[in-house]
Amino acid sequence: MTTKRQLHLNAFLMSVGHHEAAWRLPETDPYADLDVEHFKNLARTAERGKLDSVFLADGPVLWNQVGRRPAGVLEPTVVLTALAGATERIGLIATASTTYNEPYNLARRFASLDIVSGGRAGWNIVTTAGLDAARNFNLDHLPAHKERYERAAEFVDVSLKLWDSWADDAVLADKENGVWGDSDKIYPPEHEGRFYRVAGALNVPRSAQGHPVLVQAGSSENGRNFAARYAEAVFTAHQTLADAQEFYDDLKRRAAEHGRDPDHVKILPGIVPVIGSTEAEAREKEAVLNGLIRPEYALPQLADLLGVAPEELRLDEQLPANLPEEDELEGHKSRRTLLVKLGRRENLTVREIIARFGGGRGHLTFAGTPVQVADAIQEWFEAGAADGFNIMPPVLPSGLTEFVDLVVPILQERGLFRTEYTGRTLREHYGLPRPANRRASTPIPV
Amino acid sequence: MTTKRQLHLNAFLMSVGHHEAAWRLPETDPYADLDVEHFKNLARTAERGKLDSVFLADGPVLWNQVGRRPAGVLEPTVVLTALAGATERIGLIATASTTYNEPYNLARRFASLDIVSGGRAGWNIVTTAGLDAARNFNLDHLPAHKERYERAAEFVDVSLKLWDSWADDAVLADKENGVWGDSDKIYPPEHEGRFYRVAGALNVPRSAQGHPVLVQAGSSENGRNFAARYAEAVFTAHQTLADAQEFYDDLKRRAAEHGRDPDHVKILPGIVPVIGSTEAEAREKEAVLNGLIRPEYALPQLADLLGVAPEELRLDEQLPANLPEEDELEGHKSRRTLLVKLGRRENLTVREIIARFGGGRGHLTFAGTPVQVADAIQEWFEAGAADGFNIMPPVLPSGLTEFVDLVVPILQERGLFRTEYTGRTLREHYGLPRPANRRASTPIPV
Repeated sequence: MTTKRQLHLNAFLMSVGHHEAAWRLPETDPYADLDVEHFKNLARTAERGKLDSVFLADGPVLWNQVGRRPAGVLEPTVVLTALAGATERIGLIATASTTYNEPYNLARRFASLDIVSGGRAGWNIVTTAGLDAARNFNLDHLPAHKERYERAAEFVDVSLKLWDSWADDAVLADKENGVWGDSDKIYPPEHEGRFYRVAGALNVPRSAQGHPVLVQAGSSENGRNFAARYAEAVFTAHQTLADAQEFYDDLKRRAAEHGRDPDHVKILPGIVPVIGSTEAEAREKEAVLNGLIRPEYALPQLADLLGVAPEELRLDEQLPANLPEEDELEGHKSRRTLLVKLGRRENLTVREIIARFGGGRGHLTFAGTPVQVADAIQEWFEAGAADGFNIMPPVLPSGLTEFVDLVVPILQERGLFRTEYTGRTLREHYGLPRPANRRASTPIPV
Repeated sequence: MTTKRQLHLNAFLMSVGHHEAAWRLPETDPYADLDVEHFKNLARTAERGKLDSVFLADGPVLWNQVGRRPAGVLEPTVVLTALAGATERIGLIATASTTYNEPYNLARRFASLDIVSGGRAGWNIVTTAGLDAARNFNLDHLPAHKERYERAAEFVDVSLKLWDSWADDAVLADKENGVWGDSDKIYPPEHEGRFYRVAGALNVPRSAQGHPVLVQAGSSENGRNFAARYAEAVFTAHQTLADAQEFYDDLKRRAAEHGRDPDHVKILPGIVPVIGSTEAEAREKEAVLNGLIRPEYALPQLADLLGVAPEELRLDEQLPANLPEEDELEGHKSRRTLLVKLGRRENLTVREIIARFGGGRGHLTFAGTPVQVADAIQEWFEAGAADGFNIMPPVLPSGLTEFVDLVVPILQERGLFRTEYTGRTLREHYGLPRPANRRASTPIPV
């Protein structure tokens, strides 16, 4: 049997779609951001398409202006637990912050989701930019970017110790002698670090996949180093093939430098597929969506991302010549650089940048026929720019249904994507090994 | 139509049963503590019995000795989300700690569960005793009992502000004008307190029942004051009718002193019903379970609860004459007092206390026929000792199935318990009003 390299595809589920104006379409239920049945239906559609996972972004803060788009965001581990009960195989990846959680609580919640779902959980590790979030957690300043990543690294170290705090064979269930678990096979972390002290073992054992898949989504220098060390899947945003190739090579190389198998870090750029039966229809769909954007909502957010005052931006002019450098910002660093490069490269006006950004927040928007979308995916996949994609439908549910019904079959026919799940866990879908227990690996005395 | 006062009944689901030796019975699946299908089946059984809610205890720590009993505890909001998808009507109450969580995160998770379940969530607010838990959260000492309750009060105040941070009519979904939410109907807490500073609004709106039902379970002096101020349901433990009546009167009086309607604080003692077709059969069942307890596990825990060294307790002697007073302890205060009173009143040996405690951790164990169990429930209910009960089956699933199939019909025939749900939310089951939004109550200008 030949094993042809295959794509990994996630469905990034955001409210009623990634396009900020999706909620204004006649077809859209503008209350669906809070309707768990909406998310269950999306997950079932993604599973029908044999996708690797569904993925939810998150931040512990009320996003944007509430006028702009649906602003309700149900807590992702809650939503994914509901989706676990509505599906059988598909992976379930939730975003959660290392800056605003406690390791014991978060490691436990992900372990619980992992067990409840039969080993389908993934954790997208974020450090959470933005003063608004900090102010919800007793702070009056945002911790610096570098410190947030240092904290994140220790947070993950502690989480790994907690997930390994039970040997895989710790439960004896010996009714006869009245011994349920073997206390010699429990490994309390006794962690004493710079940010965290966590003494005791988790009260949840290892899951079918050992521990949740670790996912990361920041592409700054700090973010790349963090990903190279810990991430098993990386979500990233690129506008050009060349940028994506540079990132892909760089991250695989960094992973190898950490002694890791580069194939165990799956790199998945985001793509917003706007699908039409003809290219013209797809472009018209995109134009309708962009025409529904209200730039007065987007302008202040763009200015904030760039680190300038809103007055410095003019809708029908290009970006100002002098903008703060990435180094001077404390979050969304790589997103800012991507956006400035995009504006300069294509000589876009602020209004046009807003339209591009409103569609996919810096991710590649691709309007075309199902074959064209499949071609674009195949090109990046075969050109060393991606191990797969994070699919970001502009409108939900229709954009996901179209992708699954029209694009996935083409990728399957080309032998680029599975026609049936072969595994049961997210690790199995991704082709990642089940990690050995790092704590319980002491050889048993003879 | 006469409205006869009716019982409220919760199913307190713990692992494979409340009796610590339940897992050793031939009938028991000793791995079911980690099997979400086990909990789904229990919730369906409870819903078939028209019970008000299912309830899960919790602590962020590996409980007891792992040898003693099933030690896996899936995170309760995860489990209850799974149960929400497996049931239609029954309330879902999870325990969570105010000492080891952040208000923004926890209020949001409960709000999410509340929305996902259609308004069925309740939060059992605990302050979490025990040094072991503290050591999982960067601490090397347990915060003092009084301070934990002060923190809990502020935590709940912040949570209420967060749950009220959207007016009930904040979402406009005005597609025509491109205005999703009305920013004038968002009320950021801007809370600046002794323990917490939380600035921003929640990113989840109000639920069908306004906010989750607030439940409390500590019966110390601090616990009673807290319950009188905030709790809408109180779980408590009593061994005698007189003690339960004293507590009932005291708490209803305290609630009235806080300007609250005493009927809006439901008092629900725990009861461990050991059900047999004859009284002798029930007692035999209890004896079999108690015979499976290994006292060497229980002795150190009992000593810890009493604040003495394990060597000071002898299995076949009564409790020592000199024991630390409740005032000197920093947790489980009322449980300790109950246990000492029980031992002294009935001249029990340490071994006998361990058996009583192993059955229900201080809650009333009642062995008898279905009619006798129903009689006991009715007696307390009508004697002003309870508004209902927290049913703690000694063995799961069988103990819950017996209660639902054998005891509930008797209570229904006597007109003491609903034969069908009349409401959809937990508040409706409990007969509690939907709270008005405290923040958005400004009259609308004419």
